[in-house]
Amino acid sequence: MKKIITFGELLARFSTIDSDRIKQSNHLKVDFGGAEANVASSLAQFGEKVDFISRVPKNDLTEKALMSLKQFGVNTENILFGGDRLGLYFYEKGEVYRSSKVIYDRSHSSMATIKKDAINWDVIFKDADWFHWTGITPALSKACADTTFIALQKAKERGIKISGDYNLRKNLWNWGKSHTEIMPELLQFCDIMSGIHPNIDITKQDATKHDFKKAGDEMLEKYPNCKLIVFTSRGSYSASHNTWSGTIYDGKNVYTSFKYDITHMIDRVGGGDSFMAALIYALRNYEDLQYVVEFAAAASTLKHLTKGDTNICTVQEVEELIQNKSGLIQR
Amino acid sequence: MKKIITFGELLARFSTIDSDRIKQSNHLKVDFGGAEANVASSLAQFGEKVDFISRVPKNDLTEKALMSLKQFGVNTENILFGGDRLGLYFYEKGEVYRSSKVIYDRSHSSMATIKKDAINWDVIFKDADWFHWTGITPALSKACADTTFIALQKAKERGIKISGDYNLRKNLWNWGKSHTEIMPELLQFCDIMSGIHPNIDITKQDATKHDFKKAGDEMLEKYPNCKLIVFTSRGSYSASHNTWSGTIYDGKNVYTSFKYDITHMIDRVGGGDSFMAALIYALRNYEDLQYVVEFAAAASTLKHLTKGDTNICTVQEVEELIQNKSGLIQR
Amino acid sequence: MKKIITFGELLARFSTIDSDRIKQSNHLKVDFGGAEANVASSLAQFGEKVDFISRVPKNDLTEKALMSLKQFGVNTENILFGGDRLGLYFYEKGEVYRSSKVIYDRSHSSMATIKKDAINWDVIFKDADWFHWTGITPALSKACADTTFIALQKAKERGIKISGDYNLRKNLWNWGKSHTEIMPELLQFCDIMSGIHPNIDITKQDATKHDFKKAGDEMLEKYPNCKLIVFTSRGSYSASHNTWSGTIYDGKNVYTSFKYDITHMIDRVGGGDSFMAALIYALRNYEDLQYVVEFAAAASTLKHLTKGDTNICTVQEVEELIQNKSGLIQR
Amino acid sequence: MKKIITFGELLARFSTIDSDRIKQSNHLKVDFGGAEANVASSLAQFGEKVDFISRVPKNDLTEKALMSLKQFGVNTENILFGGDRLGLYFYEKGEVYRSSKVIYDRSHSSMATIKKDAINWDVIFKDADWFHWTGITPALSKACADTTFIALQKAKERGIKISGDYNLRKNLWNWGKSHTEIMPELLQFCDIMSGIHPNIDITKQDATKHDFKKAGDEMLEKYPNCKLIVFTSRGSYSASHNTWSGTIYDGKNVYTSFKYDITHMIDRVGGGDSFMAALIYALRNYEDLQYVVEFAAAASTLKHLTKGDTNICTVQEVEELIQNKSGLIQR
Amino acid sequence: MKKIITFGELLARFSTIDSDRIKQSNHLKVDFGGAEANVASSLAQFGEKVDFISRVPKNDLTEKALMSLKQFGVNTENILFGGDRLGLYFYEKGEVYRSSKVIYDRSHSSMATIKKDAINWDVIFKDADWFHWTGITPALSKACADTTFIALQKAKERGIKISGDYNLRKNLWNWGKSHTEIMPELLQFCDIMSGIHPNIDITKQDATKHDFKKAGDEMLEKYPNCKLIVFTSRGSYSASHNTWSGTIYDGKNVYTSFKYDITHMIDRVGGGDSFMAALIYALRNYEDLQYVVEFAAAASTLKHLTKGDTNICTVQEVEELIQNKSGLIQR
Amino acid sequence: MKKIITFGELLARFSTIDSDRIKQSNHLKVDFGGAEANVASSLAQFGEKVDFISRVPKNDLTEKALMSLKQFGVNTENILFGGDRLGLYFYEKGEVYRSSKVIYDRSHSSMATIKKDAINWDVIFKDADWFHWTGITPALSKACADTTFIALQKAKERGIKISGDYNLRKNLWNWGKSHTEIMPELLQFCDIMSGIHPNIDITKQDATKHDFKKAGDEMLEKYPNCKLIVFTSRGSYSASHNTWSGTIYDGKNVYTSFKYDITHMIDRVGGGDSFMAALIYALRNYEDLQYVVEFAAAASTLKHLTKGDTNICTVQEVEELIQNKSGLIQR
Repeated sequence: MKKIITFGELLARFSTIDSDRIKQSNHLKVDFGGAEANVASSLAQFGEKVDFISRVPKNDLTEKALMSLKQFGVNTENILFGGDRLGLYFYEKGEVYRSSKVIYDRSHSSMATIKKDAINWDVIFKDADWFHWTGITPALSKACADTTFIALQKAKERGIKISGDYNLRKNLWNWGKSHTEIMPELLQFCDIMSGIHPNIDITKQDATKHDFKKAGDEMLEKYPNCKLIVFTSRGSYSASHNTWSGTIYDGKNVYTSFKYDITHMIDRVGGGDSFMAALIYALRNYEDLQYVVEFAAAASTLKHLTKGDTNICTVQEVEELIQNKSGLIQR
Repeated sequence: MKKIITFGELLARFSTIDSDRIKQSNHLKVDFGGAEANVASSLAQFGEKVDFISRVPKNDLTEKALMSLKQFGVNTENILFGGDRLGLYFYEKGEVYRSSKVIYDRSHSSMATIKKDAINWDVIFKDADWFHWTGITPALSKACADTTFIALQKAKERGIKISGDYNLRKNLWNWGKSHTEIMPELLQFCDIMSGIHPNIDITKQDATKHDFKKAGDEMLEKYPNCKLIVFTSRGSYSASHNTWSGTIYDGKNVYTSFKYDITHMIDRVGGGDSFMAALIYALRNYEDLQYVVEFAAAASTLKHLTKGDTNICTVQEVEELIQNKSGLIQR
Repeated sequence: MKKIITFGELLARFSTIDSDRIKQSNHLKVDFGGAEANVASSLAQFGEKVDFISRVPKNDLTEKALMSLKQFGVNTENILFGGDRLGLYFYEKGEVYRSSKVIYDRSHSSMATIKKDAINWDVIFKDADWFHWTGITPALSKACADTTFIALQKAKERGIKISGDYNLRKNLWNWGKSHTEIMPELLQFCDIMSGIHPNIDITKQDATKHDFKKAGDEMLEKYPNCKLIVFTSRGSYSASHNTWSGTIYDGKNVYTSFKYDITHMIDRVGGGDSFMAALIYALRNYEDLQYVVEFAAAASTLKHLTKGDTNICTVQEVEELIQNKSGLIQR
Repeated sequence: MKKIITFGELLARFSTIDSDRIKQSNHLKVDFGGAEANVASSLAQFGEKVDFISRVPKNDLTEKALMSLKQFGVNTENILFGGDRLGLYFYEKGEVYRSSKVIYDRSHSSMATIKKDAINWDVIFKDADWFHWTGITPALSKACADTTFIALQKAKERGIKISGDYNLRKNLWNWGKSHTEIMPELLQFCDIMSGIHPNIDITKQDATKHDFKKAGDEMLEKYPNCKLIVFTSRGSYSASHNTWSGTIYDGKNVYTSFKYDITHMIDRVGGGDSFMAALIYALRNYEDLQYVVEFAAAASTLKHLTKGDTNICTVQEVEELIQNKSGLIQR
Repeated sequence: MKKIITFGELLARFSTIDSDRIKQSNHLKVDFGGAEANVASSLAQFGEKVDFISRVPKNDLTEKALMSLKQFGVNTENILFGGDRLGLYFYEKGEVYRSSKVIYDRSHSSMATIKKDAINWDVIFKDADWFHWTGITPALSKACADTTFIALQKAKERGIKISGDYNLRKNLWNWGKSHTEIMPELLQFCDIMSGIHPNIDITKQDATKHDFKKAGDEMLEKYPNCKLIVFTSRGSYSASHNTWSGTIYDGKNVYTSFKYDITHMIDRVGGGDSFMAALIYALRNYEDLQYVVEFAAAASTLKHLTKGDTNICTVQEVEELIQNKSGLIQR
Repeated sequence: MKKIITFGELLARFSTIDSDRIKQSNHLKVDFGGAEANVASSLAQFGEKVDFISRVPKNDLTEKALMSLKQFGVNTENILFGGDRLGLYFYEKGEVYRSSKVIYDRSHSSMATIKKDAINWDVIFKDADWFHWTGITPALSKACADTTFIALQKAKERGIKISGDYNLRKNLWNWGKSHTEIMPELLQFCDIMSGIHPNIDITKQDATKHDFKKAGDEMLEKYPNCKLIVFTSRGSYSASHNTWSGTIYDGKNVYTSFKYDITHMIDRVGGGDSFMAALIYALRNYEDLQYVVEFAAAASTLKHLTKGDTNICTVQEVEELIQNKSGLIQR
């Protein structure tokens, strides 16, 4: 089977231990992630061939980040070296009424300062049949937005399937243009998009009652190239207790997954990324769209119960969860 | 603004890691606290000027304890040095049906063996407008009770506002007198008191249904100098799940806060202290008594979700919780 | 009082830290257990004299395992040395929808390769009045099954009371015979047995509604030597939330304990073993069978809230839980 | 073989991690020791039957301390319960020019407040043939000095062999008498004593060049009951580098061990105690006094290379070191 | 006594645990430092009043950094808030032949992007009598160089004593000018300077044999305002073994300290800073220049034996080391 | 360039933390290694293409082991799955006079129970030009010895260069034949062999003074296919202090490297493997045999200063050490 390409910023994550606050922390746990790298890592564990494309500085922290990707089976050989620094973020896990906190330290990163022609997409897209990107990359800098546009053009020319995740982080968009100015022209290329829609509040506890069909139809009208609209719904009872489900719409039917009741949250970072990874895998390997959304929801539920940015789970583990919703011991 | 004085014993706390029992523990986490020090640390983080007054031995463990207070901005320059030992306690966190356990090792401490005239209150109370004490101090020894009495007299003479927290720990009162013999004469000085009342069982799960007005009136009659009665209500579903709210009574109206449902407890030690600290801050900075009690309850809810004796939170974080009761991620 | 003998395999357990997955783990926590060793450790902490009998290799890991038993007061002097290796298992704690995982690495262990005449039961059973075994031992190898049979014969000859725990682990039974071929002849010796019955599904959330009397009568008919049938019922809401209760049947009455709602599971491994240990203790020390089952259920609830294979609790702590079902702080 | 009795204070030790200073430490490692408990633990690991006698409070920290002794095989059943607190000390390991630091917090301990008739020595000395004590015990309080005197009398009456370790800690002797007033009458009972002598400076780097014969003769003259004088010599190049050797004198010959060059110190606490334990074991099991002192020096060298108060080593490991002075890998 | 001002960048340091390499590290230790902050922290622990001046972003990582300074007693109230990010560095400790590695990630920091008029030196220098700066600050950016120049002018106008540490890090100087272009005009203001001189190779193992008088005279000629030239000499036998000593020259005599043989290095970062801090303290408190250099060398030797950027030691500990060069246990 | 194949057992290593003994360890560090896997990991980090061939069971511990190899860039796709268990060993680091201890638990491993025809060498050797094996593999079982023989035959047929490391572990050879019976026929295939010779004691502190030429000539005569004989010399001053150097002989000249003085050992496991890896790299990339042996000695010196089985170093770091023998800080 051909390979999947994901493109975005590679981030080092420094998390506090257990439920410590940053102000209490004399040690930090080091993980690596970033939305598109997370998708790559999860897909590689599902058995797909994946290339992750980014730009990183040459130092031992980067080397550790690449080792982290390589251990999951992601190919890192086409990553560019250059620039000053790896993007970082500091993460303090919330508990019940105490919100999780993220301190981003990703400005001036090697990725943000990429040159728009730096990547040789012709080499990268050889043997590829899928390209995944997110709205975080064009948020980083004009050069990142331009590079994304070029990548999407090249991918479309080659008939590569394109999935995009809106992944809105308003406070990242500060290079001069707003997301509403840039995203539409990029989303035009998508075959599959994880959307945002003004009438869908995915953080409501009863999000699954939304009229996804109506919203989906409006989005398909706006983006006629798109064949599949994706929503994830998170009911935030507290920082420790969420519900989680997914919905997809193919222009005809709305498919909504089982709603998982995540009563003891372990780590919600990367939850949406793990959903997208599992969705891509499922679309490539299963016909039944209901099963596809169940697979994506189950896989990403496991992510919420796993520390770090990366969803550490196999296809078999996802299938077992779909079969058996309670967490029995296995011995 | 003038400064706040808190007075009491400084304690080292040795806690087991996670949910380990003491009998399993080969490592212990070191924190520092004590009811009055906790109030000081929290007030300093809210931006108040605070002096903590105590008596401590001269050694590196004490030095670490003082560093812990200083990092939060508490002034420690008026603490007395002398005596043999720092009070300690060992703490094993409970889980669901397994109760938390505290082993006190504070007898013969430098604080307990203070001389009643040792502290120069005239120096300490200069530039102060608030004095906070708790019922733990007079419980420690006759000298501590006498010193507290002297402090209260001096404070009253200077027109300093006085808040007192009954903070009953029956097994500490073993120097010859019972709390019912000593506390009334000390409470007479209080402008604000966190009370205990025979008809109010604050550990009932429906504590907020109590007749706080009736109880408050009885207390105000007994302590005519007092203007404000304070109650905290803890509904103990299990060691891992409590509800928490506060109530204040000013002789006219009962103000009860939102009842927080703390479904995944992190550390309840210092919960009452954090309530008192936030109450003092709020009384100094807000007019509306309903907001005052909401501020105190929200702040102390955050304490229950933070490890250690000290409430690590800012005014802004408390205000955010008051606005938004669920713990969303912030990035 | 005379001593209790338990017999089985001693296991080293390597667990991941917190909620880490094995694939994420660069450190593992070392504990020691095994069903019968767990029963011994718990009984010794309750104040009983207990000998644990097993076969172990001669090396420092074994030495550490024996130190672990000795610290609880278990006598290890009659353990045999020999063979190649200590049985091991790797344990990854589940969370909510993510199941716990056990990787057994106990084949070819010193215990499994025991010679059937290796143990001098006459020496061991001197001064003993109780023998406890489980269905795990005959599952390990033919020699283990034979040794168990010999032990049961010797115990019966001496009038020693015998308790057996079916403890079915189907994937351990792979030396040629199935548990249905071997267990009946071993269970014939039991005075007390923790049973399995085709009509009792103890993992149902409403398990306590089963007809334990009918099932118990059928078992007593099949095993006429038996006087007491034991069931534990686990309602698995998720890997983090179980209910737990016990039921015993003496041929006349069914005694079912309080059903504990374990909302935040710490470690369920050894839950059944701690129930059996507490049951044995209670049968030796209390008359009232209702209190016996309450004691066993309360003790084993504490095990679910304690890390490791061993139930670290005292008789006093169990009694306090029976009295007071919520987990208040004790100071 | 008959059993050995050691008597003294059981201490909890809280050490900083690695080379951290107390002022930097947010976690502390918990070990248990005390000079006489250390001797007991080491002897039990050598295979001797040992009883440790002390007085301790009833709480879970004590329970952990007893578990620590029991894991090594020390019998703790004759330890008295009573009093307020377990003696503690805080330990900061030195490095090169930075000295190790000990903060004692052992005043008012259960041991120090023992009643002089509290211990039933007749029961304890049954089946015993050796009694070991140190000069730390009489330093703690008058009651401790009196109890030691009574124990020595009782032991002498029963013909039990007595070993005593001067173990001078000047700052512990503050109950009213100095060590020079109390120690001589206690030392009169000793068959073997680890001595101090005004002309022997055991911390000199060339200590082994002392005239041990002359010093020993003077001591034997002063204590005619004594048969063996023991010296340990520590050459302190730095906190990280010491030399270590032992010398014994039987009134005829001086036997000095190999001088070990401990170039990378791990933990010197308990070094002298491990020497005494190994000496006692060797005197009971070997004839050749040169081998006895070699055994004691080798064993205690291993202690300097092992963390904690306790010497974790077997007879076989000591013998291997005597044979082979370099530390090759064993596989 | 009046206060001391130090000015420079505050850095977060993320170090690997023990001797792990960055590529192996899943956890990092968090400390805070920077050359001038280190000088401030050490001086505060010696009992001096110190203000640290810098510019930092507003987030919880900064807050933790300020807490770290405040715990030592440094006043942080005049630090400016603004800009994007706190400077960071990653530190991997070397061992013997494996060099220590530093990855700087301090570009675009809040300090580097300071406006040259941002600091109100008139307020800061009130009640100050000493100003300390290093060559790292002008290396960061033109604005930093300009700000340093302004500060030096203002300090000189007020008659404040000025000490400067050349502290050359060639790879930091990349904003357009080289250190040889900028440093001379800044050094003109210094009363005391820690110098570099082409003929003095301070990393030679026999550095103390240099002709410090000749070099010093040349420097005093070039910088006529200067009264004292400071050199530190490090003999690098390996990453684990250095020698360390200091030399000062007052235009008349060369004073060289004892040469410390640091056979087991703990952490050399901040070694030079701790020397400068102790030198400043000693110049303010002692007359004898030989004692001054001994004090500075002894204090900074302790820094090499203490983890983190900060020298955690008291005046008393330094004096004890001057008296007694070996690291005996203190109890 | 073509790829390198290494073949052997993959081992999980459980090491005690710091200098703890196994008997003290409640946590163990998990690493993965095995002689041939170590060679593969090091070569991959030097930039070579490497395949590691082995047989492993299917479980998450294995998966973690493979992730460990993949992170360094080793290809694991040709590893066979099957059998019961992964080989393990427990490692306790020695200190000075206390020897390191290894407890092997590798019997009955998936590798030991391989079928001799299980591996398809024709596929594996495609695109390969180098095969590396060690004497550990034929020691494990007859099947392993047979498989090694087949591999060597196949490699020789294809003209693949063969390097073998005698790597004698006498206590592993217990399947019926001794190493002297099996090794000679396997060594016949070697182009390069790391030898043992009766007259060369490589653990002598003056090993480099041996007559390597005479020994080498005898070995070349016995194994005429061989072109290069390799020796490593370890001078064991203590478990914490070794010297280390290498010698190669090509039938004409003896090339001996610089002798490294490893005064503070971090981890000597894998020292020989890292030498072989670096030697293979150097033989493929450099002409000068003196440089080859310097490269191998320098690289493996870094391994002794790095925790774990794997040599975490790059070509650049090795070259820097060859240039500069002391470990200066790099910033």
